[in-house]
Amino acid sequence: MSARAGVVVTGTEVLTGRVTDRNGPWLAEQLRRHGVDIGQVVVVGDRPDDLAAALRFLQNAGVDLIITSGGLGPTADDLTAEVVAEVLARPLELDPALHARIGDIIERLNRARGRQTEPSAAAGTRKQAMVPQGAAVLEPVGTAPGLVVPAAAGVAGAPVVVLPGPPYELQAMWPAALAQPMVQQALAGREELRQHTLRLWGTSESELAGLMREQAEKLAGLEITTCLRDGELEVVSRFHPVAQQRYDDFAAMIVSTYGDAVFSVDGGTLEEIVGRLLTEQGLTIGTAESCTAGLLAARLADVPGSSSYLQGGVVSYANEVKHSLLDVPVGLLETVGAVSAEVAEAMARGVIARLGTDLGVGITGIAGPGGACPGKPVGLVELCVLGRGSRLARRVQLPGDRADVRRRSVAVALHLIWRLLTEAERSPS
Amino acid sequence: MSARAGVVVTGTEVLTGRVTDRNGPWLAEQLRRHGVDIGQVVVVGDRPDDLAAALRFLQNAGVDLIITSGGLGPTADDLTAEVVAEVLARPLELDPALHARIGDIIERLNRARGRQTEPSAAAGTRKQAMVPQGAAVLEPVGTAPGLVVPAAAGVAGAPVVVLPGPPYELQAMWPAALAQPMVQQALAGREELRQHTLRLWGTSESELAGLMREQAEKLAGLEITTCLRDGELEVVSRFHPVAQQRYDDFAAMIVSTYGDAVFSVDGGTLEEIVGRLLTEQGLTIGTAESCTAGLLAARLADVPGSSSYLQGGVVSYANEVKHSLLDVPVGLLETVGAVSAEVAEAMARGVIARLGTDLGVGITGIAGPGGACPGKPVGLVELCVLGRGSRLARRVQLPGDRADVRRRSVAVALHLIWRLLTEAERSPS
Repeated sequence: MSARAGVVVTGTEVLTGRVTDRNGPWLAEQLRRHGVDIGQVVVVGDRPDDLAAALRFLQNAGVDLIITSGGLGPTADDLTAEVVAEVLARPLELDPALHARIGDIIERLNRARGRQTEPSAAAGTRKQAMVPQGAAVLEPVGTAPGLVVPAAAGVAGAPVVVLPGPPYELQAMWPAALAQPMVQQALAGREELRQHTLRLWGTSESELAGLMREQAEKLAGLEITTCLRDGELEVVSRFHPVAQQRYDDFAAMIVSTYGDAVFSVDGGTLEEIVGRLLTEQGLTIGTAESCTAGLLAARLADVPGSSSYLQGGVVSYANEVKHSLLDVPVGLLETVGAVSAEVAEAMARGVIARLGTDLGVGITGIAGPGGACPGKPVGLVELCVLGRGSRLARRVQLPGDRADVRRRSVAVALHLIWRLLTEAERSPS
Repeated sequence: MSARAGVVVTGTEVLTGRVTDRNGPWLAEQLRRHGVDIGQVVVVGDRPDDLAAALRFLQNAGVDLIITSGGLGPTADDLTAEVVAEVLARPLELDPALHARIGDIIERLNRARGRQTEPSAAAGTRKQAMVPQGAAVLEPVGTAPGLVVPAAAGVAGAPVVVLPGPPYELQAMWPAALAQPMVQQALAGREELRQHTLRLWGTSESELAGLMREQAEKLAGLEITTCLRDGELEVVSRFHPVAQQRYDDFAAMIVSTYGDAVFSVDGGTLEEIVGRLLTEQGLTIGTAESCTAGLLAARLADVPGSSSYLQGGVVSYANEVKHSLLDVPVGLLETVGAVSAEVAEAMARGVIARLGTDLGVGITGIAGPGGACPGKPVGLVELCVLGRGSRLARRVQLPGDRADVRRRSVAVALHLIWRLLTEAERSPS
């Protein structure tokens, strides 16, 4: 049995979606590596009652450790330390040395910005130096210290690790939190929990579900979840080391059943795998994007070291740019229209010619909500990948809103690049 | 007092961060518009016990309505309907008419793909047609129906609205859910809840916190939360209509205190505001991006209708592309290096010349983790915006990882564009 942890993410900005939580997922992955499983992530606003209720819920669920993120700032709506102290029956006390250290940090920050420290900031500094009795302090990465707070004697419950909300601060503080004896003790007896991911393109979730039902006996001991997203079917298996052989058999069965629909057996993302193939084959790539307007180039560039194969690209939102920077003939634009297989191919050809790359990708489509015309509805996207003497083109009709259509277009483009780069393997001539 | 709702998002892929939840935030915003407040969003994996615990937690928290997203697919790990039925003591029954309708949908989908419906899919179809006694069925948008499930007689608790996980399906199904008499009744007596957002650039959260502490009395009745992100300070106020005057006074006070640091008083995002200004002033824009590799163009293009001002751009990841498509002199790249104020300006100038736009933006920097050199650490980014006879340049040293540096660079660039477009207002000559 693994140790279990629960996470509470605080912040009305997260609850209402103005900020996307990155801490819950990051903590889930860190904990998994240490054999700790997360059962729940609770997102609450900046209201003390809701936060207290979430902490009590996780305590009652019997987790071994609770981690909170956010609510440690100087503003009055940042209340995590106070609420955790109350739930664990640990009164807050000013830590004078910590108070002085936070004051120094703020002074230094203001000096660097050429500003005076406003007297109005003093209350906030003092607030950040209030520590529950018996808690361990984790040194600030920004201005806010973290805490590891044990339940008071006589109060049942897991210790609570209190971390700041900014992902950069939380991640930098995490090793110190993990090293705390209270945390180590809470997670004692844990067992390694492995996770492996397969990624398939264009496979139906129902079909895989049927296959898994038939094989249910052979899958005992594997926790398998599937998720379909932008055309990719992701199959994630979690298991204890004792089930490794069962997992290997399952992965082999998937590969033999679905063949080259399986594009990733090691959890690599499409952009990472494409990047690896380009590097291995010593090829460069350039992009020519209309409706996606830079998203494909940006996703290729998400991979560190991508500058060795990504030369660059052209965002040709306007027809004039398709002509002036990608040499798409004006006549072609007039006769078949910007959203056409011919223009997608001309864009790919143009970017290869202008950038001198081995591969070129052209994407042109109608992301909506406007821009549809007879025969060309919103969601229609034309794609073309050229290079290595090959040409792969695709016309797709994508569902969803503007953001969905653009994101899915990029997924299709990456998949076409992958196909072109692995063609030789698949059909040896 | 507003009605309150709780949301449970299911899916191991969301819990572990492989998929970012978009449903919790979307539902929060929809409910707010109807005067319903969300206190908690609980994310759970595909484990029945964890889902049941989350439902009971929200029931105990006394919410008026619970909404779940996800877990309605055909696979064995999709368990939401079963668990909701159990928690509300409503046994599942096969709905034969629904069963037939889902079968038709799957048949049609497979025909469109030119495939046969596999016999292995039958169990999944049957599973999706199991309905808790007394529940209302919401017609499928994809293949999965939604449900509105009341608690059984004698079981205390709010009704549960069960919606599919894909955001497109959930959003399309929402109006039907809201129209259900059980939902209307649960939310009866609600009162309008207003929300207004101010956005400031380069203002410290501590300073604002001090100001808000001093003014605390005047802010009674306003629930104000602040959030600092990528250089932007977002101030969100929620209040009942009776507090409108207090909010107006607060907003006026912020504007008079912080002057032109306030760039948005109506919740508009930086790309929306920049888009509006470009449209009003009849100007076009082009981008020249190195380290951000298309992210700025893509963010400008997030705004529907952006094609009227965004002509396009160049992703000049390689130096050769900076020269060949943006006319950055080779000698300049050799003497001052690609990451320099001179090259950022030459890129902006180049994109204006090549695309014939009114404004041009150049961004060049070191996103990391590699690429640093003496005097040019990771996080150093040079930006330049040219146009309307003006030039705004900025050298910034940004914290965080590769993704942070790139995202923050885009925020700084958008802010520079905004400054340039509002210069005339700020300093009338």
